[in-house]
Amino acid sequence: MTEKNEYYSEEKHGLHEYFELGDFSLVSDEVLLGARIAYKTAGVLNEAKDNAVLFPHMWSGTSASMESFVGSDRPLDPSKYFIIFPGQFANGFSTSPSNAATPQSGGNFPNIMIGDDVIAQHRLVTEKFGISQLQLVTGWSMGAEQTYEWAVRYPDMVKRAVPIAGTAKTTPHNYIFVRSHENAIKSDPAWAGGLYSKSSDVHVGLQRHAETWSVMGLCSDFYKQEIWREIGFDSLEGFLTGFWGAYFAPMDPNNLIWMGWKWRHGDVSLNTENDLDVALSSIKAKVTAVAFSNDMFFPPTDIAAEVNKIPNAQYEEIESLWAHFAMFCMNDRDKNAIDDVYRRVLAS
Amino acid sequence: MTEKNEYYSEEKHGLHEYFELGDFSLVSDEVLLGARIAYKTAGVLNEAKDNAVLFPHMWSGTSASMESFVGSDRPLDPSKYFIIFPGQFANGFSTSPSNAATPQSGGNFPNIMIGDDVIAQHRLVTEKFGISQLQLVTGWSMGAEQTYEWAVRYPDMVKRAVPIAGTAKTTPHNYIFVRSHENAIKSDPAWAGGLYSKSSDVHVGLQRHAETWSVMGLCSDFYKQEIWREIGFDSLEGFLTGFWGAYFAPMDPNNLIWMGWKWRHGDVSLNTENDLDVALSSIKAKVTAVAFSNDMFFPPTDIAAEVNKIPNAQYEEIESLWAHFAMFCMNDRDKNAIDDVYRRVLAS
Repeated sequence: MTEKNEYYSEEKHGLHEYFELGDFSLVSDEVLLGARIAYKTAGVLNEAKDNAVLFPHMWSGTSASMESFVGSDRPLDPSKYFIIFPGQFANGFSTSPSNAATPQSGGNFPNIMIGDDVIAQHRLVTEKFGISQLQLVTGWSMGAEQTYEWAVRYPDMVKRAVPIAGTAKTTPHNYIFVRSHENAIKSDPAWAGGLYSKSSDVHVGLQRHAETWSVMGLCSDFYKQEIWREIGFDSLEGFLTGFWGAYFAPMDPNNLIWMGWKWRHGDVSLNTENDLDVALSSIKAKVTAVAFSNDMFFPPTDIAAEVNKIPNAQYEEIESLWAHFAMFCMNDRDKNAIDDVYRRVLAS
Repeated sequence: MTEKNEYYSEEKHGLHEYFELGDFSLVSDEVLLGARIAYKTAGVLNEAKDNAVLFPHMWSGTSASMESFVGSDRPLDPSKYFIIFPGQFANGFSTSPSNAATPQSGGNFPNIMIGDDVIAQHRLVTEKFGISQLQLVTGWSMGAEQTYEWAVRYPDMVKRAVPIAGTAKTTPHNYIFVRSHENAIKSDPAWAGGLYSKSSDVHVGLQRHAETWSVMGLCSDFYKQEIWREIGFDSLEGFLTGFWGAYFAPMDPNNLIWMGWKWRHGDVSLNTENDLDVALSSIKAKVTAVAFSNDMFFPPTDIAAEVNKIPNAQYEEIESLWAHFAMFCMNDRDKNAIDDVYRRVLAS
């Protein structure tokens, strides 16, 4: 069993609640033993149970990652909406390589699919809260993958969907770059097939991963215009170390790898015998798919290509040199553009 | 001393000639001992010595890499032009980590700059051939970096310049991704600071490098549309292994690393006290800068931004899903588009 990693603590990510799933049958037919998902909520579910928003999180994130979109002055007003932030498997709070019991701990954790997350979230939403329709499902990056999965798997439950900077089916290019990121961690002999005794033993692999991530994660003009100065860095190397390096260093390597595997296998067409057109045309939600210009992870053209196959969907592109990471709202322009999408969608 | 690597042989790359430079003072003030550059030529230098074209090669290439542009039916007709293909330092034929004598062999090789290559080429062109003006200097990728360096360092000698998919000053994004590629090789413990005994000992590092290279090297639509089928592969994994893996596997890891270091330090403004505007405005050549759409190595916007600072320059963009590797002319469309640029430029 891996030594406890203090990064995944309520001190750092706030209070969580847990929904117990028991021994949970995975899409792969394997069973995740004693499974549970962590989650957070904001606001109050009304009596009609029709004011709920579901906001799954991105790769490497937790249920705390998107909380900043909630507030009386933010697009998700908790006096109006009941917002659920479900934690995906392998995020360090839900059942994960870092916290699973033997015989599924660490490198012995089973592979999980986006569908598994969404089935577990569906149980939370229906069994725990008795919700039959969600006003909005939204997420960024892997959160967008979960959003699409929701819209395909439970078309009658999703009234509006706002997938941001993500796709319904991972492209081959996306697949190979995410795998290369996983392999950057695995290249460290200390990873030892995932059976290291503590996360920090794999610091070399985490550092290599941060380096490869910094390349695809942001665009040429971001670096050329030294946009990192916006957030207080005064050198490129300082930014690489102090932003990317510091972001990943405390995390559990296996959690990142298992979330990465899940990311690159995301594919709503697994629900429709590999026919993506059938899957996307079955969506009933009003979809607003948002792409970030300059995004090398999920290029706008890949997002736009899918939107054309969804009956009631529109495509929007937000211009930002923060590229995929515009969702971090590092400047007011990005924040206002994203807020504006949510406000318009929720008002419609 | 590294064991001889049969990849760098005339059996594989044709006959070379060598120009001896002796102990060669580098831009860094270090001295490259017993230096020489390998080169090839095609056609005959006329009596007026005014029909010469210089075609330096890209990273990982040799003097043989661009020979396919020469022929009676190709843009560089050897019955008309005298074409010189100079080999850059560290290419395995010119003085390189793989062939340098002690004490500069392998990991002890000094760092080389693009300026060093161009100074050595200038000596070849002037001392060996007595040429005072080149009809055309052209190159792709690192070859474009050398082309720009020529146009800035020897403005009166370059009549026309066609830098293709490269920049005069390496951008920070380009710098960090090339460094990450070098680090993929160095991550292999067998690299041993460059002091391995034979290239193939570092096969794991070369394979990791091929993986990271495949990600930035080609665009999402290339992989989505399975353009690799054009060249006879029938699976993605087959392409990754059989194309990228096979391309790099026989090469010398240090040669790749030292060429990479040179690539990412490319910067014509080192000639003008770091003032890029001054450097680019000093160019007298008629410049036709070519970008490939979808190129993640040298994005069109980076190339276009520099062209605006050159007095007599125009920008052209060639649409290709082969992205940076359109120069390989894997299909007739790419080949015709590139040929057309050369024909127009040489006719002007």
